[in-house]
Amino acid sequence: MSREGKTLQEIGEDALIERITKSWNETIKHGATIEENPWVVLGVGDDCAVLRTHNSHIFQLLKVDAVVENVHFTADTPPERIGWKAMARVVSDIAAMGGYPVSALITLGAQGTESFDRIEKIYRGLNRCAREFGIALAGGETTAAPSLFLSVTLTGLVERNKATPRCSAKEGDAIMVTGTLGGSSKGKHLSFTPRLAEAQWLVEHCKPNAMMDISDGLASDLPRLERANGMHAHVDFEAIPRTDGCTLEQALCDGEDYELLFTIPQRKVNALKADWPFRLPITQIGHLSKKTAPKKFGNGFDHFLKP
Amino acid sequence: MSREGKTLQEIGEDALIERITKSWNETIKHGATIEENPWVVLGVGDDCAVLRTHNSHIFQLLKVDAVVENVHFTADTPPERIGWKAMARVVSDIAAMGGYPVSALITLGAQGTESFDRIEKIYRGLNRCAREFGIALAGGETTAAPSLFLSVTLTGLVERNKATPRCSAKEGDAIMVTGTLGGSSKGKHLSFTPRLAEAQWLVEHCKPNAMMDISDGLASDLPRLERANGMHAHVDFEAIPRTDGCTLEQALCDGEDYELLFTIPQRKVNALKADWPFRLPITQIGHLSKKTAPKKFGNGFDHFLKP
Repeated sequence: MSREGKTLQEIGEDALIERITKSWNETIKHGATIEENPWVVLGVGDDCAVLRTHNSHIFQLLKVDAVVENVHFTADTPPERIGWKAMARVVSDIAAMGGYPVSALITLGAQGTESFDRIEKIYRGLNRCAREFGIALAGGETTAAPSLFLSVTLTGLVERNKATPRCSAKEGDAIMVTGTLGGSSKGKHLSFTPRLAEAQWLVEHCKPNAMMDISDGLASDLPRLERANGMHAHVDFEAIPRTDGCTLEQALCDGEDYELLFTIPQRKVNALKADWPFRLPITQIGHLSKKTAPKKFGNGFDHFLKP
Repeated sequence: MSREGKTLQEIGEDALIERITKSWNETIKHGATIEENPWVVLGVGDDCAVLRTHNSHIFQLLKVDAVVENVHFTADTPPERIGWKAMARVVSDIAAMGGYPVSALITLGAQGTESFDRIEKIYRGLNRCAREFGIALAGGETTAAPSLFLSVTLTGLVERNKATPRCSAKEGDAIMVTGTLGGSSKGKHLSFTPRLAEAQWLVEHCKPNAMMDISDGLASDLPRLERANGMHAHVDFEAIPRTDGCTLEQALCDGEDYELLFTIPQRKVNALKADWPFRLPITQIGHLSKKTAPKKFGNGFDHFLKP
């Protein structure tokens, strides 16, 4: 497909990422790495990047994410929640790789007309989330910008044998989700708890073959899991756990659930359900197969595609 | 000074940073670190953060920075240069700590109406800079935003005994700068070369006591060096190396020079000048002292303060 003269709205977020990162693995393979830069284990395409450390049993995790006014929050959003959300989103990504967070850098873009009071409260929310998850705020940057945004960089660590990328599912794996899906717009997206404890328990007690977080809605993220594994998701739509009062469509498409989506061998599902120590629900919603699935998903949230 | 009800424009960037990060070192000291999170060596207040690794002789460096449309570039800026600049800025910070860059994550914020062509060229510039300096592009994020911005996170490594923070100058140190200052608005700010080779040579052959890069102009950055060391800069204004055609005021205030500002013992200056293997000028502009200097600097560039 030619993209000459097209806008981002016309080609969409996934196609944009595919195109701009095509040459990156080349950089990793031929340009800077293999010999000169042997640090990158896993680059583009997962919840976070995975880097080697000086200890062969430990990988470093690296993630960056931004929240933008009038996209992820509004002028009416309680400012502490903006900060919490900005930090919690990246904690969710580090958790979904099986790791734990270590240190963060914050970039603030602001017009300058914002009240200092509001900005301070945003940082209070960032701080609160950082303390909650044992993260040291190690630096950052401030810049003028036409609208308020926060970009959070988070480092983490993971034991090599606990690292859980999204691309290592096995044929026949059960597809599992934590919690309930949908309803983020009712406020959940501002006060959610990243599933760090649950993910840590999983990699310790029932290591998933593949894991990711659901950030753009199951309808966007499950197809990413399919593509990453070259398999099809056979989904029991009735089984999808919905947040109270949500329709199936909302559960699939609202986005910002920040629940874990993972796969384990089918034979381990019962033991997992029996051992699961959290009050948070854990649900099988289908399985992965190389065979084409009878029913396809629609689209979840895309930052650029025009609806 | 009370900041109740004030805007960022009224309090300025340095005061904002001071205020919002006051509690961070507390987080580092009491909240998450010392026992739980012993990774952060150096947090807020330097060119980049310094973290421990699993090798006691090596530190990791971490830096994030953003460039924003109509602040750091315009719709007319050649897009490859936008990408180059976004990456080169953070390379400059890692270099100024005495380290070398390793891997980068890119956050793109875009309206969606931008042409794919323009975005692809921006990433081509990012890529070119990454290859030039041996950096692996390891991931990133895209998001909708009211205006185009790029935030680049860069990791680096530095041998422990070569790490050069800005705060470790000694009484009587000579203050040195590389290159010439001023004139960034004539285009230099889009195509500058980060002084990685020069910084690497310095830490190898004539280890500075303190080092930082000049990003907001000497008039902003030298006072930061003074404050970080609790000393006064006694400057020979005539000696400040100006870019051709620049006035002293431009050399002090234009900003975006991305030259190195460092201090070495006065007795080493002649040997350094004799051994310096680069064509780039290297100049002593004064010395640091606990005594008050006869003449104070004005202000350089502030992202928020109203002029």
